[in-house]
Amino acid sequence: MKKLIRGLREFKASYFSTHQQLFEQLSHGQKPRVLFITCSDSRIDPNLMTQAQLGELFVIRNAGNIIPPFGATNGGEGATIEYAIQALDIQQIIVCGHSHCGAMKGLMKLDSLRSEMPLVHDWLKYAEATRRLVLDHYSHYEGEELLEIIIAENVLTQIENLRTYPVIRSKLYRGQLSIYAWIYQIETGEILAYDANDHGYVLPQSQLPPSEIDNTLFDPPAIRNRETPA
Amino acid sequence: MKKLIRGLREFKASYFSTHQQLFEQLSHGQKPRVLFITCSDSRIDPNLMTQAQLGELFVIRNAGNIIPPFGATNGGEGATIEYAIQALDIQQIIVCGHSHCGAMKGLMKLDSLRSEMPLVHDWLKYAEATRRLVLDHYSHYEGEELLEIIIAENVLTQIENLRTYPVIRSKLYRGQLSIYAWIYQIETGEILAYDANDHGYVLPQSQLPPSEIDNTLFDPPAIRNRETPA
Amino acid sequence: MKKLIRGLREFKASYFSTHQQLFEQLSHGQKPRVLFITCSDSRIDPNLMTQAQLGELFVIRNAGNIIPPFGATNGGEGATIEYAIQALDIQQIIVCGHSHCGAMKGLMKLDSLRSEMPLVHDWLKYAEATRRLVLDHYSHYEGEELLEIIIAENVLTQIENLRTYPVIRSKLYRGQLSIYAWIYQIETGEILAYDANDHGYVLPQSQLPPSEIDNTLFDPPAIRNRETPA
Amino acid sequence: MKKLIRGLREFKASYFSTHQQLFEQLSHGQKPRVLFITCSDSRIDPNLMTQAQLGELFVIRNAGNIIPPFGATNGGEGATIEYAIQALDIQQIIVCGHSHCGAMKGLMKLDSLRSEMPLVHDWLKYAEATRRLVLDHYSHYEGEELLEIIIAENVLTQIENLRTYPVIRSKLYRGQLSIYAWIYQIETGEILAYDANDHGYVLPQSQLPPSEIDNTLFDPPAIRNRETPA
Amino acid sequence: MKKLIRGLREFKASYFSTHQQLFEQLSHGQKPRVLFITCSDSRIDPNLMTQAQLGELFVIRNAGNIIPPFGATNGGEGATIEYAIQALDIQQIIVCGHSHCGAMKGLMKLDSLRSEMPLVHDWLKYAEATRRLVLDHYSHYEGEELLEIIIAENVLTQIENLRTYPVIRSKLYRGQLSIYAWIYQIETGEILAYDANDHGYVLPQSQLPPSEIDNTLFDPPAIRNRETPA
Amino acid sequence: MKKLIRGLREFKASYFSTHQQLFEQLSHGQKPRVLFITCSDSRIDPNLMTQAQLGELFVIRNAGNIIPPFGATNGGEGATIEYAIQALDIQQIIVCGHSHCGAMKGLMKLDSLRSEMPLVHDWLKYAEATRRLVLDHYSHYEGEELLEIIIAENVLTQIENLRTYPVIRSKLYRGQLSIYAWIYQIETGEILAYDANDHGYVLPQSQLPPSEIDNTLFDPPAIRNRETPA
Ligand SMILES: [Zn+2]
Ligand SMILES: [Zn+2]
Ligand SMILES: [Zn+2]
Ligand SMILES: [Zn+2]
Ligand SMILES: [Zn+2]
Ligand SMILES: [Zn+2]
Repeated sequence: MKKLIRGLREFKASYFSTHQQLFEQLSHGQKPRVLFITCSDSRIDPNLMTQAQLGELFVIRNAGNIIPPFGATNGGEGATIEYAIQALDIQQIIVCGHSHCGAMKGLMKLDSLRSEMPLVHDWLKYAEATRRLVLDHYSHYEGEELLEIIIAENVLTQIENLRTYPVIRSKLYRGQLSIYAWIYQIETGEILAYDANDHGYVLPQSQLPPSEIDNTLFDPPAIRNRETPA
Repeated sequence: MKKLIRGLREFKASYFSTHQQLFEQLSHGQKPRVLFITCSDSRIDPNLMTQAQLGELFVIRNAGNIIPPFGATNGGEGATIEYAIQALDIQQIIVCGHSHCGAMKGLMKLDSLRSEMPLVHDWLKYAEATRRLVLDHYSHYEGEELLEIIIAENVLTQIENLRTYPVIRSKLYRGQLSIYAWIYQIETGEILAYDANDHGYVLPQSQLPPSEIDNTLFDPPAIRNRETPA
Repeated sequence: MKKLIRGLREFKASYFSTHQQLFEQLSHGQKPRVLFITCSDSRIDPNLMTQAQLGELFVIRNAGNIIPPFGATNGGEGATIEYAIQALDIQQIIVCGHSHCGAMKGLMKLDSLRSEMPLVHDWLKYAEATRRLVLDHYSHYEGEELLEIIIAENVLTQIENLRTYPVIRSKLYRGQLSIYAWIYQIETGEILAYDANDHGYVLPQSQLPPSEIDNTLFDPPAIRNRETPA
Repeated sequence: MKKLIRGLREFKASYFSTHQQLFEQLSHGQKPRVLFITCSDSRIDPNLMTQAQLGELFVIRNAGNIIPPFGATNGGEGATIEYAIQALDIQQIIVCGHSHCGAMKGLMKLDSLRSEMPLVHDWLKYAEATRRLVLDHYSHYEGEELLEIIIAENVLTQIENLRTYPVIRSKLYRGQLSIYAWIYQIETGEILAYDANDHGYVLPQSQLPPSEIDNTLFDPPAIRNRETPA
Repeated sequence: MKKLIRGLREFKASYFSTHQQLFEQLSHGQKPRVLFITCSDSRIDPNLMTQAQLGELFVIRNAGNIIPPFGATNGGEGATIEYAIQALDIQQIIVCGHSHCGAMKGLMKLDSLRSEMPLVHDWLKYAEATRRLVLDHYSHYEGEELLEIIIAENVLTQIENLRTYPVIRSKLYRGQLSIYAWIYQIETGEILAYDANDHGYVLPQSQLPPSEIDNTLFDPPAIRNRETPA
Repeated sequence: MKKLIRGLREFKASYFSTHQQLFEQLSHGQKPRVLFITCSDSRIDPNLMTQAQLGELFVIRNAGNIIPPFGATNGGEGATIEYAIQALDIQQIIVCGHSHCGAMKGLMKLDSLRSEMPLVHDWLKYAEATRRLVLDHYSHYEGEELLEIIIAENVLTQIENLRTYPVIRSKLYRGQLSIYAWIYQIETGEILAYDANDHGYVLPQSQLPPSEIDNTLFDPPAIRNRETPA
């Protein structure tokens, strides 16, 4: 705790003092462009890994980056999604799973969770479509490989769930909303993005048109880096 | 989206490449010390404002940093709390509200939300104790001042809710768990921490014993700053 | 009631006696090929309008041909879907709305239902995505025209809901299941089927490849007609 | 699917064209006299077996012809019942079970359903009173005989559940509503109706007063037969 | 509070000391003969008004002596009923309403409760059948008279709800359980019992066969009076 | 039943006739000072053991004196608490457990209850914090001793649950409400009250200031005894 309290003072002394204009502006309201849904895992820091500034990402975090279908529960996920789309007019949603996810490991040993961690057990009900799909089609995999498949498919399951929300369905209807499936690889620090064309996850820059990739490739990263503000 | 994708590359090129050992270590498991529960608001970045490293904060984020009482819903909050306490053995919980919170503003005009944003309306049921308390005791306040009171009291309401979870109650019973109430002031970049002695929020360093404060005060913040890794 | 009881005897004396072999066979088990989900409306008779024989259609009927998303309720819809797919191995689902649907009219005056017919009001929550979509994009329509749009879109909403069921998602994953959106026009006795290519409903025979259409067109209907068994 | 599409055309060409006046009339509204609640089983066709015309039967179908008690779930059953009684002013309800019912077989092996078909398992909770009653009083039966008892008692259980709905209770109070328990025997094509006097199921014509039975017996069935319209 | 604490000592000094044998016996287990379900109203004391001894009445008390139908809620009522019937083998249930019931008054002004006392509002859902019945058939009554009708009918509504519990249905099936509807008149200190023959409430002794009434009439009450133990 | 009916007449003839003024007064309304929450156990009579008069105790009784957290269920507990605090302005709540409690015994063998008494099983979910706490900290106890600990801790668990109700939290906030934890010892006829200072249960008179204890000690109990009205 002492360490965190020191951190607060450091933040105030350094980051805050060099970004006072940003904080002044943020105190008048937020206008995030992206709803970022990811796991509670401590190894994930959405702002750090996307180098997004304060004010850019509206964030939902829970164990397993799970979204119960509309009407299935009165939890925070639905309300926060509704607020993001309806009140903040966000037009991009990223559902971001990650390698080594503890919740997804739980999906592989669901029965033992029933008495050990009953709330986790019940929560994983909303990833049951993932479990069933993997049982039906990937039962010849096991261990790490199976876990990777579960993680990858679960992001897509949750996007199916997302589509049942009235605000989501209405925005998708006219193409006013985009939903992306991402997976964060802790060991490489890389994000892979889902590509529906070949049902695979790829580096997201490969999804941009060539001109924009080039543009990206030659950007000297240091300059835009959040970590060394001019 | 292009900006985020560039951000991913920058992260890989700069932060990841300078912290490879950390990522290697994290890929073998997480051991966070703190469960950090806060709002989805885009102006909050828990790691940035506490200067915590990757791997230190297990994070729950939803609109209004609300925790339904045990058994009240099958949402992500309960499962994630159970996982944090039971599977990760976390012993410190911070519930962190913030100034200008849109969800708390919603609590002030609940009726209009019923048809406009029904999921937000229903979700705020778990902050009803906040609303009732403020109606009963602070009806002579209004506007910004009233909102501040709501935000401050709501963090305490949610801690009452937290206490009904079996894993929480059991750990609290023997003093194996500490719960902190924080409020993040966007305009000043400061955290205020609840002090039960005078039912007020204060700068958290004022809660440390004198020797530790001194220690803190003369720490040169720049050195530990995450933003300028050596 | 007397009329129905006479009907029972007529059925036994005529239809049953001319189809004894079929009944004998059915008494050993069912093997339906289609799960037919439609409204409770008395003007719909799935077997009659598809001229399907006994044993061919597994049928769910409720007000508004609505399917709550997975996990949203412990009603008959989910269990019956699970049984159809899992136990009966059905590979085709038809969700069939219809013109002049009273439940869909209810969606246009939801507020008045809250006290008048509270259960209908609550049930229409699972068609809220339809209502929202139509409010957002078709508010310039009214009356009969608006009702037609609601009916047509609601079938698609319900198919989105269907996709969240684990058994459905797993079968769809490998193309082992087809889902069709139909609308039955009471006044013309015709079915229109959804064509995703142009987001429109068309006569289903237009969706068959030419060779099969021809085949269909010249089939003398009388021969296969259920009403005049040889 | 091709077969069904052919069926649609046959229906239009034959049945529709010979009943155009009926369809014209139905397009202006429905006025069904009976709410018919039965199983989704493909071997049941309510209109065919009662020889009822289009427009006469308002139909609920789910696995097991189960009606959750009032307030127990937000499924289609309650809403559809409310609509039938309140909006359509229906005054007769038939709950119709059937021989060889798969859902009722499920009631005999409930434990194995928990993991195999969890939604069916949970749905059968509303037939738990049937299961308990049979366990307590008929444990000396087994196999087909036991199944028959379960089917017969379950129809009565569901009628108990029905009685808890406000609209039902109010109508029953003044004798404005009649509820009938039927069982359809697939192998004989016969319906048996519950007779409360001797807690048994009998041919329904035996429940009519003698004059009406005679009337029934000598009605030449062919004339009123739906299958051979003049 | 002081008064209650004095009461505890008085109880110990007087009642307990004169009934030590009873307490010794009760400490080895309870064997109540009756499940008594009544309102939380402070003017009701089930043991006092029936002069039942400790150990005779198993008691459920809530606002309005309401029993949600089976499956409608995970509240204390269902569990306590199940325990009474299943674990204690109780064979008599009394549902006892009372004059001037505040919960039943709430049923007459339900809308105003929605914001004032939302939990009471939601709880009265399980008396909705009472409200509906009275609206439909007794709308020409008002004030005290209407309240009396509501109170009387609600006891019967709750008995309908009771009948949906598996343990209840099974016991009723073979006549192993009796359910009584009572109303306690605060102003006269009298109980009225429901008589199904004329849909009315009467003094319960009028329901006993003549021989037993006589027996009752001439019993000198003082002797059996709990208040003056020999 | 005959015995109870005789009891009713005795009550009318003796208690009622000697307290007519009280009943007259009660018929105009109740003004209880205490909300008394206790188990349904037949060996408990709240009025008798506190020697409280009719009109003094507003009573909730269910198996295990359990209070689900706010929002966890639509059972009678929440509504009755809300009514007690909001409509009756009660300022003292007693949660009273008791020795030999059958519900608490159930908590020790939860698994076997799942099929035997499923409603009791599900209801004990709201005492899960008790079970967990005892498993974690008192696993070296067993039998009667363990049961005593469970009973004692469960009263405190339920008080934690109570604190999540909006009306409770608001009243506690300004010290307008007191909550007491009691345990009734059937074998000694004594109440023990929780003393937070040493986490123990003591005779409640030991909690009064000395002057009031003396006052209490020398009060001749017989005089105020409800059992021998003058
Ligand atoms: Zn994870
Ligand atoms: Zn906020
Ligand atoms: Zn319809
Ligand atoms: Zn069936
Ligand atoms: Zn009352
Ligand atoms: Zn007990």
